[in-house]
Amino acid sequence: MSRSIATVSISGTLAEKLAAISAAGFAGVEIFENDLLYFEGSPADVRRMAADLGLAIVLYQPFRDFEGVSVGRLARNLERVKRKFELMHELGTDRLLVCSSVSPDTIDDDALAIDQLGELAQAAARAGVVTCYEALAWGRHVRTYRHAWKLVNAVNHPNLTLALDSFHTLSLDDTPDAIATIPGERIGFVQIADAPKLNMDVLEWSRHYRCFPGQGDFALADFTAQVVKSGYTGPLSLEIFNDGFRGAPPAATAADGNRSLLLLQELTREALTREVPGSTNAQTAPLYNPPAAPAHAGWQFLEFAVDDAARQRVANWLEKLHFRRAGQHRSKDVTLYQHGSAAIVLNAEPDSFADAFFQRHGLSLCASALRVDDARLALERAAGFGYQPFSGRLGPNERVVPAVQAPDGSLNYFVNEQPGEPTLFEADFVLTDVDGPTEVGPITGIDHVSLSLPAGSFDAWVLFLKAVFGLQASAAVLLPDPYGLVRSRALFSADRGLRMVLNASVDPHTATAESVRAYHGTGLNHVAFGTGDIFRAVTEFEAAGVPLLRVPANYYDDLDVRHALSAEFLDALRQHNLLYDRDEQGGEFLHAYTETLDQRFFLELVERRGGYDGYGAPNAAVRLAAQARQRSRAERQDDEQDKSL
Amino acid sequence: MSRSIATVSISGTLAEKLAAISAAGFAGVEIFENDLLYFEGSPADVRRMAADLGLAIVLYQPFRDFEGVSVGRLARNLERVKRKFELMHELGTDRLLVCSSVSPDTIDDDALAIDQLGELAQAAARAGVVTCYEALAWGRHVRTYRHAWKLVNAVNHPNLTLALDSFHTLSLDDTPDAIATIPGERIGFVQIADAPKLNMDVLEWSRHYRCFPGQGDFALADFTAQVVKSGYTGPLSLEIFNDGFRGAPPAATAADGNRSLLLLQELTREALTREVPGSTNAQTAPLYNPPAAPAHAGWQFLEFAVDDAARQRVANWLEKLHFRRAGQHRSKDVTLYQHGSAAIVLNAEPDSFADAFFQRHGLSLCASALRVDDARLALERAAGFGYQPFSGRLGPNERVVPAVQAPDGSLNYFVNEQPGEPTLFEADFVLTDVDGPTEVGPITGIDHVSLSLPAGSFDAWVLFLKAVFGLQASAAVLLPDPYGLVRSRALFSADRGLRMVLNASVDPHTATAESVRAYHGTGLNHVAFGTGDIFRAVTEFEAAGVPLLRVPANYYDDLDVRHALSAEFLDALRQHNLLYDRDEQGGEFLHAYTETLDQRFFLELVERRGGYDGYGAPNAAVRLAAQARQRSRAERQDDEQDKSL
Repeated sequence: MSRSIATVSISGTLAEKLAAISAAGFAGVEIFENDLLYFEGSPADVRRMAADLGLAIVLYQPFRDFEGVSVGRLARNLERVKRKFELMHELGTDRLLVCSSVSPDTIDDDALAIDQLGELAQAAARAGVVTCYEALAWGRHVRTYRHAWKLVNAVNHPNLTLALDSFHTLSLDDTPDAIATIPGERIGFVQIADAPKLNMDVLEWSRHYRCFPGQGDFALADFTAQVVKSGYTGPLSLEIFNDGFRGAPPAATAADGNRSLLLLQELTREALTREVPGSTNAQTAPLYNPPAAPAHAGWQFLEFAVDDAARQRVANWLEKLHFRRAGQHRSKDVTLYQHGSAAIVLNAEPDSFADAFFQRHGLSLCASALRVDDARLALERAAGFGYQPFSGRLGPNERVVPAVQAPDGSLNYFVNEQPGEPTLFEADFVLTDVDGPTEVGPITGIDHVSLSLPAGSFDAWVLFLKAVFGLQASAAVLLPDPYGLVRSRALFSADRGLRMVLNASVDPHTATAESVRAYHGTGLNHVAFGTGDIFRAVTEFEAAGVPLLRVPANYYDDLDVRHALSAEFLDALRQHNLLYDRDEQGGEFLHAYTETLDQRFFLELVERRGGYDGYGAPNAAVRLAAQARQRSRAERQDDEQDKSL
Repeated sequence: MSRSIATVSISGTLAEKLAAISAAGFAGVEIFENDLLYFEGSPADVRRMAADLGLAIVLYQPFRDFEGVSVGRLARNLERVKRKFELMHELGTDRLLVCSSVSPDTIDDDALAIDQLGELAQAAARAGVVTCYEALAWGRHVRTYRHAWKLVNAVNHPNLTLALDSFHTLSLDDTPDAIATIPGERIGFVQIADAPKLNMDVLEWSRHYRCFPGQGDFALADFTAQVVKSGYTGPLSLEIFNDGFRGAPPAATAADGNRSLLLLQELTREALTREVPGSTNAQTAPLYNPPAAPAHAGWQFLEFAVDDAARQRVANWLEKLHFRRAGQHRSKDVTLYQHGSAAIVLNAEPDSFADAFFQRHGLSLCASALRVDDARLALERAAGFGYQPFSGRLGPNERVVPAVQAPDGSLNYFVNEQPGEPTLFEADFVLTDVDGPTEVGPITGIDHVSLSLPAGSFDAWVLFLKAVFGLQASAAVLLPDPYGLVRSRALFSADRGLRMVLNASVDPHTATAESVRAYHGTGLNHVAFGTGDIFRAVTEFEAAGVPLLRVPANYYDDLDVRHALSAEFLDALRQHNLLYDRDEQGGEFLHAYTETLDQRFFLELVERRGGYDGYGAPNAAVRLAAQARQRSRAERQDDEQDKSL
């Protein structure tokens, strides 16, 4: 299905918007009236600009408060709409979006509305255009697509069609299942928007919080499957009112919009196939069909950009955590550390990608290597969604590892090991222990990776992880930091082999925001290692000198009030500075944090018991407050040191 | 009445919060449970910290889901609350806030709730503490103070009192008038919060958008007047959940909180006096009573910090706008320009306040001089609200002009002229024309001044203008800029002698935000000059070479559709790039903008007809888009110039 977007969805002047929309790969564009109004040039100029960019102007919008009016008002409305029809001719588009009336004096009379929409259809026929009537979720009387369709169907005129908008249907918790029963040729236009589930006035919600499909909480594939089943063959068009997008660079926003429609088409295809296993090719053929996301994915290694000093510091920590120095890269200044299935690579190679990353971001996560079922297909899938493939320098006999760039410019390698062939580590590294990694301590592997992001790139990351790896997302939560709020969202694969937590500061004053700024937007915040025995782990690591973040005694008093824990267990938690959470099914989460390294980077140890599937969100505020205290202690020590100099 | 604030209202660790609250002038503090939980120390440590700072801990909060529960649950709740009573003893406070239950399984039975609250009262009596029962606006069954009071009154026990919170009452559009009928000694605690009127879920609204009294839209003086009439003599305590405050420096936030309570007390006194002209001293005596705000205020002059080059550029513009060079300062490098009653002062004095301002902010508004009825009283009032008085260097025979610093550090001079004495201009300047200003053109005076602010200082400015000058505020509006949204709010005096418009970018990408950052937060955006004949004004000024901002032709086509304007009038508007607005009473607003000077500073010409009282908000988006185009044209020219070098 062809992809379109409304100009209101992105930032900039009309010329900047059209250029970004074209570059992103859209075929069509909806011109929003205000964008034309502020444009210093004629509608014909806009037509030429769009044509030069290969963009079809698929719709002009919006036209408001047409139906349900007095006789005198109808005459004025017909006059008003005729002038818009003339403008549409100049603009070179044949479709006008007409919203259901919102005016308080709209007359509540379907028969009258049908008569007046009939007059609209006839005027449209005379002008050679098609009107598309849409039920706004906050319309005065017409609020659902079923009601709008009742009126359009009664008018029964080819120049009056139904317009659908996923937001208006799903924001009211209305079901989309009746869409499939509407003849596709009577649906004149389909707009797509996602949104986070928010408890607020639907108009405000619509005007400020819409987002691209996949970034919010709506079941859009189910909605779009109904549209496909109706036989509709027109464009799917994004109409996104989003305060963040209004302020973001238009090229990146438009690119994400295009990806989001591709991903939606893939998920719609899956929904249709699930529903009717033998669904016809005619239905699913127009939907984007990329190689499937990897069924199984997991961390192969995390690669940090370091210089000599940072390598020394990180290596020192890894050794205290009983990581083994497992190998040295054959041609580069790159070292491999392993503990259980967790592998960390420290890259200090001069004039490399990692070096450039270090110059810009300091100690940072410059690459993640993911084990996938088929690396070539994974790359093909990522590239199909418009993510940039990357290849670096190779030494003799080193493995070509396909990679794409994540939204922060870091690399995501796709690794698959073939039976009988050397592993990636064997190919690229001189291994200390040729029999492969040995269990040396309580860490079993990487449980999850947590990224601190600039607020503006949060939703881009959600889309990246969903599109490239097929991850699912939990609902976003707000975490209170002593200096501001942090928005947090977890993404994970079906088998939980891959878990990522995204964090962004809601305001510019928290440590997350400061460290993101200080390090030019790089995302590493912390790595959580899994263990089967956290008491053993913290005992060993504390003995080895790993500084654990101290948890206030008041936390344990409160824990005791909230959960019925044995005195002995509570004492053990307190003694080891362990945090605790329990889910409704009785699953338990025990975790501990290290103090921070480099002011922003820290490690976590986690033990999951009984199927616990979260990340200890109730404890986040305790951790953030403890880190704030650590920072202010460090600042005080710096001050005192300054004074003593 | 004594002033208190909840720790949740400001940013920082508990130690930082308490220090800021004490420094701001509060007598008391509510300890929020989470702040204690994250604190690395015992409740007794908190008690000592507060005592050392001279702060009384007036309340501990919150205790949730006590009443309307099963027998088994009641026993657990009594156990739970006893532990909190013990903690309160350590903390040294005798008051606990108990919120009406929100749990879905709360039993809807007032008799049961009364029984259980009775048990709570007895437990409190045994522990020697007082419980304060509050109706949350989103309580499961108890949502209004009337309902909560019905239960508390039925229990009829001194250790169970009613807690009031203005947000919970006013967010539901409930009336506060029954508060006066409750015996004051039965009200155990009063919390005060303001909020902007928002159409959203009341819980979300409460958790994120509360603000200090005077910064929102609630009629808080009427609410507080009812509290005073009840005979309540306890503290007024701010409980503000605000995402911005969570991220802002705590000292400045706390200072504004303290001011806001002083202002609320003044307005409450006025409300009581209005209601009962002979209201008893006993009622109004405990309320703050500053010198009255000036009944009349107007612009005496605006003072810009300049260097030689900036002075040349601004003087050049002023001359084209037919300003007259009217005088030279007796002892400083300061020049006076006048046109009608509008006076502009350009200050290039080395090593002065203006010089320091220029070093930091570039060309900027470093001072505003306001004509007031009594300058000494105005200063006393401002100082009473905690704004910093300022005095600069004086030459011989120069007038001492009292001033305070505004939130951006600029000065606000208070000027009053005494009959028979030399005017300020006569005292300080060698005037070119000793007969005073002569009418030289179509400008009549300064209509309004518009400031571009960092988002975080918006509400501080609202409070400053209300407290110091007694201005009223319109509701905030959102203006669409091509690169993001701008929040805007007008403040004005009763006689409209003083009008200010505050603008702040909602996101960090608009020109407002960029220019605020680039110039270190200084606020000048534009000055609007009033005229009685805008057609004459723009004709003269264009002839003199003032570049007016061009308005797209599409704007006029749309204007024609929206308003029935004569073809001739529309043509005249179009020809002169004039914008137009009309209010519901037929009042009209004609205005034009100059292009920008120094990338951020521009001028406006406005003509108000028929009592129009707004600022042309419907045209703001057209202006912002035209300015964005001007900027991108200027950038393109710079690029081309760069290439040609």
